Amino acid sequence: MEAVGYSLTQHPDMQLETLADDAIDIVCAAQQENGYLDTHYIINNLDNAFTNLRDAHELYCFGHLAEGAIAYYQATGKDKLLHTVERYADYIDSVFGSEEGKCKGYPGHEIAEMALAKLYEVTKNTKYLELGRFFIEERGKTPYYFDLEHKTTLKEGDTTQRYLYNQAHLPVRQQKEAVGHAVRGVYLYSGMADIARITGDEKLYQACETLWDNITEQKMYITGGIGGTNLGEAFSFNYDLPNDTAYAETCASIGLVFFARRMLEMKPDSKYGDVMERALFNGILSGMALDGKSFFYVNPLEVLPEASHKDERKFHVKPVRQKWFGCACCPPNLARLLSSIAAYAYTESEDTLFVHLYMGSKVDKKVKNETGSDSMVQIGIEANFPWEGKVTISLKSQEKTNFTLALRIPDWSRGFILSDMENEQQRMKDGYLYITKTWDKEESFVINFNMETSLIRANPLVREDFGKAAVVRGPLVYCLEEADNGKNLHLISIAEKPELKEITEEFLGQKPVIITGKGKRLKEESFEKVPLYFHEDQEIYEDVELKWIPYYLWANRGEGEMQVWTKK
Amino acid sequence: MEAVGYSLTQHPDMQLETLADDAIDIVCAAQQENGYLDTHYIINNLDNAFTNLRDAHELYCFGHLAEGAIAYYQATGKDKLLHTVERYADYIDSVFGSEEGKCKGYPGHEIAEMALAKLYEVTKNTKYLELGRFFIEERGKTPYYFDLEHKTTLKEGDTTQRYLYNQAHLPVRQQKEAVGHAVRGVYLYSGMADIARITGDEKLYQACETLWDNITEQKMYITGGIGGTNLGEAFSFNYDLPNDTAYAETCASIGLVFFARRMLEMKPDSKYGDVMERALFNGILSGMALDGKSFFYVNPLEVLPEASHKDERKFHVKPVRQKWFGCACCPPNLARLLSSIAAYAYTESEDTLFVHLYMGSKVDKKVKNETGSDSMVQIGIEANFPWEGKVTISLKSQEKTNFTLALRIPDWSRGFILSDMENEQQRMKDGYLYITKTWDKEESFVINFNMETSLIRANPLVREDFGKAAVVRGPLVYCLEEADNGKNLHLISIAEKPELKEITEEFLGQKPVIITGKGKRLKEESFEKVPLYFHEDQEIYEDVELKWIPYYLWANRGEGEMQVWTKK
Repeated sequence: MEAVGYSLTQHPDMQLETLADDAIDIVCAAQQENGYLDTHYIINNLDNAFTNLRDAHELYCFGHLAEGAIAYYQATGKDKLLHTVERYADYIDSVFGSEEGKCKGYPGHEIAEMALAKLYEVTKNTKYLELGRFFIEERGKTPYYFDLEHKTTLKEGDTTQRYLYNQAHLPVRQQKEAVGHAVRGVYLYSGMADIARITGDEKLYQACETLWDNITEQKMYITGGIGGTNLGEAFSFNYDLPNDTAYAETCASIGLVFFARRMLEMKPDSKYGDVMERALFNGILSGMALDGKSFFYVNPLEVLPEASHKDERKFHVKPVRQKWFGCACCPPNLARLLSSIAAYAYTESEDTLFVHLYMGSKVDKKVKNETGSDSMVQIGIEANFPWEGKVTISLKSQEKTNFTLALRIPDWSRGFILSDMENEQQRMKDGYLYITKTWDKEESFVINFNMETSLIRANPLVREDFGKAAVVRGPLVYCLEEADNGKNLHLISIAEKPELKEITEEFLGQKPVIITGKGKRLKEESFEKVPLYFHEDQEIYEDVELKWIPYYLWANRGEGEMQVWTKK
Repeated sequence: MEAVGYSLTQHPDMQLETLADDAIDIVCAAQQENGYLDTHYIINNLDNAFTNLRDAHELYCFGHLAEGAIAYYQATGKDKLLHTVERYADYIDSVFGSEEGKCKGYPGHEIAEMALAKLYEVTKNTKYLELGRFFIEERGKTPYYFDLEHKTTLKEGDTTQRYLYNQAHLPVRQQKEAVGHAVRGVYLYSGMADIARITGDEKLYQACETLWDNITEQKMYITGGIGGTNLGEAFSFNYDLPNDTAYAETCASIGLVFFARRMLEMKPDSKYGDVMERALFNGILSGMALDGKSFFYVNPLEVLPEASHKDERKFHVKPVRQKWFGCACCPPNLARLLSSIAAYAYTESEDTLFVHLYMGSKVDKKVKNETGSDSMVQIGIEANFPWEGKVTISLKSQEKTNFTLALRIPDWSRGFILSDMENEQQRMKDGYLYITKTWDKEESFVINFNMETSLIRANPLVREDFGKAAVVRGPLVYCLEEADNGKNLHLISIAEKPELKEITEEFLGQKPVIITGKGKRLKEESFEKVPLYFHEDQEIYEDVELKWIPYYLWANRGEGEMQVWTKK
C-alpha cells in the first residue's frame, strides 16, 4: 500500500488506485469496535491480542499499515485507511503507556516508532508522538517486559542473547553498540531519530549518532550491507564481517537508508549521505534481479555455490535470486524504497536545499527573492550516475533568488571541478559544498566528481579482508564472477600494478562500466594431483586479465562463484 | 569399564578392580529376563525399547557395554559382565536380522558393529558376527528404516541431510564419500573393516579404502581432526576445512585411529599409520589439558576468543578446555585409547612384526628359529618421540630367529639412516621398510628419522589455507599462540626466509621442542585510526620473531588467540 501510494504520486494509474481502494475496503471492514485491527488474532482468538509482543509482529504490522495509509493519503487525498489507522492507534494508545494500569510493552520488531512519528506529523495529534516516544523510552528497562510476557516459557541462561536480539538489553540512550537483529536495529534507530528531530532532543540525537558511527565504522560491509551473522539475522561483534557467511539482508540496508535520511534531516553530514548512496547502489540494488522478478534476502560478498548447496552453515547464502520467500519482507521493501527514492535525494531547511543523491530529477523549493519575499525556484539535476561523475544543475525562477545550495561531496570522489562559481560563494562544511549566492532567473552550472577506479582496503581488524582489496568506482563496488574469471576465484590475486581500465560493454541489455585489470592465478598444475598437505614447493602462477562487474549486477547469469575482496 | 580393563592390564590395582566389580554387579542386576539391558527404557517404559534406533543410542550403549565387558574379561578373566553382554546380544539377535519377522533396523549411532565383531572374536559365536554384518549391510537400503520408524513425525524436504547425517543414504558398499556425523562415520567404517578382515571380504575392504582415501585426502585437518562443520558435528564437502569453525571432535580423531588400526590389520600401508600418528600426536592429544583434568570436544585450528564468546556460529569453539560436558564422550574415549595405545603401535602376521608407532615399549612375538620351529622373541623399542627421530630397536631370544621386522617410514621424514644393516635384507613396500634376516640372540640397531622442522602447504583447493603455511616437525603440528606472539595473529606473516630454529624450553613442567622463526607483522599504526574502508595506502610492517608451540599444548596458559595456518 505504501509503495502504491508513492508510485501513484509519480505515475497516476486508475487501475492500480481502484485495486488499492478495494483492498482498503476489505482491510477496514475487519476493524473491531474498539479499533483493534490484526486479522491473525481477529480470526484466531482476540483474547490473545498483545500477549506476545516479542514474537508476534502485531505492532510491526500496525506500523506498516500506518505507513501505507499515510503514503496513500498523501498521494490520493483519500483518508479512509488513514482514519482506520488512527482508530487503531487510539486503541493501542489506550492499551500501552506510562500511565498506571497501562501495559509497559513495546514492539518486538520495531517500526511502529517511525510510523507513529509520521502519523503525528500528518495528523498533528501529539498522542501518537507520545506513544512512539513511550515505545522507545520503555525499551530495555528492567524488569524486561519480554520476560514478564514469557514468564512460563523462558529458560535460564539464554538471556543476554535474547535481550540483544531485540535491542532490549539496555535503555536506548545507553546503547553504544548496534546489536541484535539488524533490520529491527535500524528500524529502532530510525524511530529514535524521528523522535529526536521532532522533539529537538539533542541527547537522543547523540545516542543515534553513537549507534550510527558504530555501525558504519565497525559493522558495515563495503556494500552498505549490515548484519554479519545469519544467526538471528544479526549484527556480529565489531569488525566481524565474514564475506561468505554474511547476512547483509536487503531490508537491513534499506533500514540503514531510512536511518541515514533521518540523521540528514537533523544534521547534514556527508557521512550519512555517503552511506545512503553506498547502500542504495550496492547492497540494496543487489537484492533484485535485473528483470525485477527475483530477489535476494541475503547479500553475501563471496559465494561458492557448492558451499551454498552442501554446507548448512551457508544454506542462507543463495547463489541465485529466488522468486519469492516465505518471509517476503525484502521485495515490498524494495518497492517502497525505490518508488520514494526522490525523498532521499534532497532535504531542505528554510534557506538551503541539500542535494544528497545525484539523479535526474526536478525539485521545487520556496526561497527568498532579492527583496526578501517568498519565491519559488525549480532546481533540476541532470546526471548519469553511477557511470559518470558529471552533474549539471540548473535553476529556474520568475526572479532572481537568494539561497544556498548544499551539495554532498561523495567520500569516493578524490576531487571535483566546479564550473563558473566564485570562490567567495563556496564553503565546505561536514562534507557538503555550500554555495550561497544570488541566483539568476535561469542559471546552470556543472560539478564534475572524480570517478576514477580505485582499490580499497578494509581496516586490518576485519580479519576476512586482510591482505585483500576491493575495486570501486564512484559509488559502485565491483566483484569478480566465475562467468568472467573462471572457477576458484580464491586462487586469483590482483597484480602489483593492476593497470585498471574502464570499459563499457553490453551486459544483459545494460551498458555498465566494467573494470579490467591485471592479475595472477595459481595454475591448475599447482593443485591437481597435489596431496592434501605437502612440503612447501614452488607454486606456479599465470598472468590473467581480470574482469570486474558492478556488485549489484552479480548473479544475473546463472550460478557461479563471486567475490568482492580479492587477494593483493 | 573398557579403560579400566586396559589400565589393569598394564597397572594392576585392586582398589580399581573392586570398584569395577561393584559397578558390574549393579549393571548386571538390571538385566531383564529376556536379556534386554538399557536402563533408560527399563526405568521409563520397556514398550518403547528399540522404537527409536535413529536417536536413542540404545545399540550404541550396547556397543560400549560389550567393548567394556570384553576388555575387562581380557584383563581380569572375570566373565560376569561378558555373559551379561552375551545374553543381551542374544536378545538383540532375536529382534534384529534378515529373517522374516525380524526388525530391519540398524544403529543410529554406530559402534555395535565393531563391538559385535570383537564379541565374535572372543566367544567364537558366529551369531554375533552375522548380527554385526547384518547391521552393516542393512544400512542405507530402501525403504529407509529410520523413515519407517519415524513415519508420523517426519517432514517432507529434509531427507537428504538426514540420511547423510546417519551414513544411511546408500548401502555402505556404494558410499564413496565420508558424510554426516564424523564420529558415527568412522565408527561405521571401523566396523566395516572388522567384518571385511574377519570374513576376508576384499570388496568390503575396497569400500573401506575408498572412504579412507576420501577422508584423508580431502576431509582431514592437518592435525588429523575430522568434521569440518559443527552443524551435525559432521564432515563438510571436499576440501571444506575451515579453521575457525572446525568441529574436529576429539572422538572423531579417535575413531579415525580405530579405523586406521583396522585397515593396517588387513594391509600394512603407511598411509594408515601416518594418519594414526598424526591424529594421536595432534588432534587427539589436544583434547586433554596438560594436567589431564579438562577437555576439548572441539579442536579448532584457529581461535579468536572474542568470536567464541560473541559469535553464536563459534560458540562450539571453546578457547579453554572444560572440566566436563553434558555429552561427555571425549574424556572416556581418550581414557580407553590412551590406556590401550600399545595395541596401535604394533600389528603382526605369522612371520612379520609391524611397527607403526615408535614409543618406548616391549613386545613378545612368536617367530621361527633357524630350524623352523617356534621360538619367542622380545622386541624392545627405545625412542623419544616426538622430540627426537632416533629409534633404538633391540631383540632378545633364546636362539637365533628368522623373521621380518617391518618399520613404518613416516611421511614427515625426508630420509632416514639405518645402522648396521645389509642392503639385501631390506625392502621397501607401501611405506614400510621390511627387514628380513636371521637375528642374533641379542641384537640391536638404530633407525634415525630425519625430523627437521618444515613448512607445509595445504592443497590450494582448501580455500581457508591458501596463501598460508603450517609449521611441522616430525609428527607434530605447531601453532602460534597469543601468549607468545601477541594479539591479532592474522596480521602476522612468515618471512620469505624464516630461518626456523628448534629450541628446548621449559613449558609448564615439560621440555617440548619449540620452534622460532622470522616473520613480519602489520604495525598498529596501520590500523589504529584507520577507517573501516580506505583508499589503498602503504602498509607498515615490522620484523618479528615468531614462536610456535606444539599444537597439542595450546590453551594451557589461559585464554588467547591461536592459529595453525599463518600467512606466507
